Amino acid sequence: MGGNTREAGRSTASRVLSLFAAFSSVCPVLGLTELARASGLPMATAHRLAGELVAWGALERREDGRYQIGLRLWHTGALAPVHRDLRSVALPYMGDLYEATHENVEIGVRDGSQVLCVEKMSGRHSIANATVVGGWLPAHATAMGKVILAFAGPDMVADVLANGLDRFTPHTITYPETLSHTLRQVRENHIAFSLEEMTIGVAAVAAPVFGPDGDLVAAMGVVVRATANVRALTAAVRTAAHGVTRQLSSAPLPPGENMS
Amino acid sequence: MGGNTREAGRSTASRVLSLFAAFSSVCPVLGLTELARASGLPMATAHRLAGELVAWGALERREDGRYQIGLRLWHTGALAPVHRDLRSVALPYMGDLYEATHENVEIGVRDGSQVLCVEKMSGRHSIANATVVGGWLPAHATAMGKVILAFAGPDMVADVLANGLDRFTPHTITYPETLSHTLRQVRENHIAFSLEEMTIGVAAVAAPVFGPDGDLVAAMGVVVRATANVRALTAAVRTAAHGVTRQLSSAPLPPGENMS
Repeated sequence: MGGNTREAGRSTASRVLSLFAAFSSVCPVLGLTELARASGLPMATAHRLAGELVAWGALERREDGRYQIGLRLWHTGALAPVHRDLRSVALPYMGDLYEATHENVEIGVRDGSQVLCVEKMSGRHSIANATVVGGWLPAHATAMGKVILAFAGPDMVADVLANGLDRFTPHTITYPETLSHTLRQVRENHIAFSLEEMTIGVAAVAAPVFGPDGDLVAAMGVVVRATANVRALTAAVRTAAHGVTRQLSSAPLPPGENMS
Repeated sequence: MGGNTREAGRSTASRVLSLFAAFSSVCPVLGLTELARASGLPMATAHRLAGELVAWGALERREDGRYQIGLRLWHTGALAPVHRDLRSVALPYMGDLYEATHENVEIGVRDGSQVLCVEKMSGRHSIANATVVGGWLPAHATAMGKVILAFAGPDMVADVLANGLDRFTPHTITYPETLSHTLRQVRENHIAFSLEEMTIGVAAVAAPVFGPDGDLVAAMGVVVRATANVRALTAAVRTAAHGVTRQLSSAPLPPGENMS
């Protein structure tokens, strides 16, 4: 099925997917040579496939001849449940939290051993932080990450420990025992903090969002200046996360129904 | 290259893309039979390709055996410039506008003859409206759409007229002459309204966002109850749209640099 070129062993779909995988938040724009190298495809194959993806709208060709992810792939990705369901339910509660704090309000889900940020709301005066929607955050150094780690189960903790607890600031938790102790507190109190553990000058507080079956679905939190009274935000963050949990339980969507 | 099955005439990439195209906001969850029918692929091919897409993370298989768009495709789509660049620049200004109005704040771009909603911010007390992030709106019946139509050039107007001016409410503009007149006003005043033209009880106001070259990039607006004084929001919407325009011109991103 794969044709008789030198990538004959690769499946039909894998060559298309390898082109998508070449793009990242570090390299969102790629020339043909970079695209071929990153995808492991011969130049001619990469060129032909990229042309088909451009014609469909999955990629766009810029005026400088380089490629970027296209509008239609963005639209298609937005059909994922994490966007359609979780984000739609959470957004009004994030709005409430934003009004109460005027700071960065974020929601994230587990993706392997990391946190994938699903939505972020911030104002012009909110403190700049590391979170990008669609980007990943380390689990052990962020408030959302600690919430997810605390409730995701031991396999995620094992993965995170196996990857090593990278030190981002002098305040990052780097001892497994300290992390275990912290996660136990998060499980008890349903709240997690990051006090300059990811970025100096930045603090965060996050709370868990549960699904109708009681499993953790997401973590929701606020990122503020380290000089702010982050503990005073606990009630607001808990309230908003409870609101999303309640909404997820009370209004199960008929499959195929959109919420907005 | 395409193998010797009965879809031999179709290219490698087109079969994968036809699986993506099977999903829509109306049908975000599909069984294998529906997937094969919508993509025009034989069941066996659809099953095999869907399996590869699930393995990569482009699709997810639910407990009920049906398929939905996966986390990794969502993440890949979020690398599109419309999300990475426009959305990141606009979000703080949308936050300001949300605080000023407590209503739905939206930003959209042209996609063919329609408006694709790129971001929406709303609170629990905002009025429910038709906009879904990643979804399309008709150009002639919405405030964002009129802004885009007014500045997008005559080819878009011709497309919209060729498709016919669908009537959504008794207030929808359905005469080409009325639309032309309205678009002329939008070009003069840099502001557009929709007064119950898309949904009864809902009004909107939108303003243009321009790129560094002076071309229209997006429309940004607020959707409120029709009983609200929508014209009083003009200044706030203009100010926010100007802010995004200024930011897009003043801080061109080095390609590959992320903004958050």
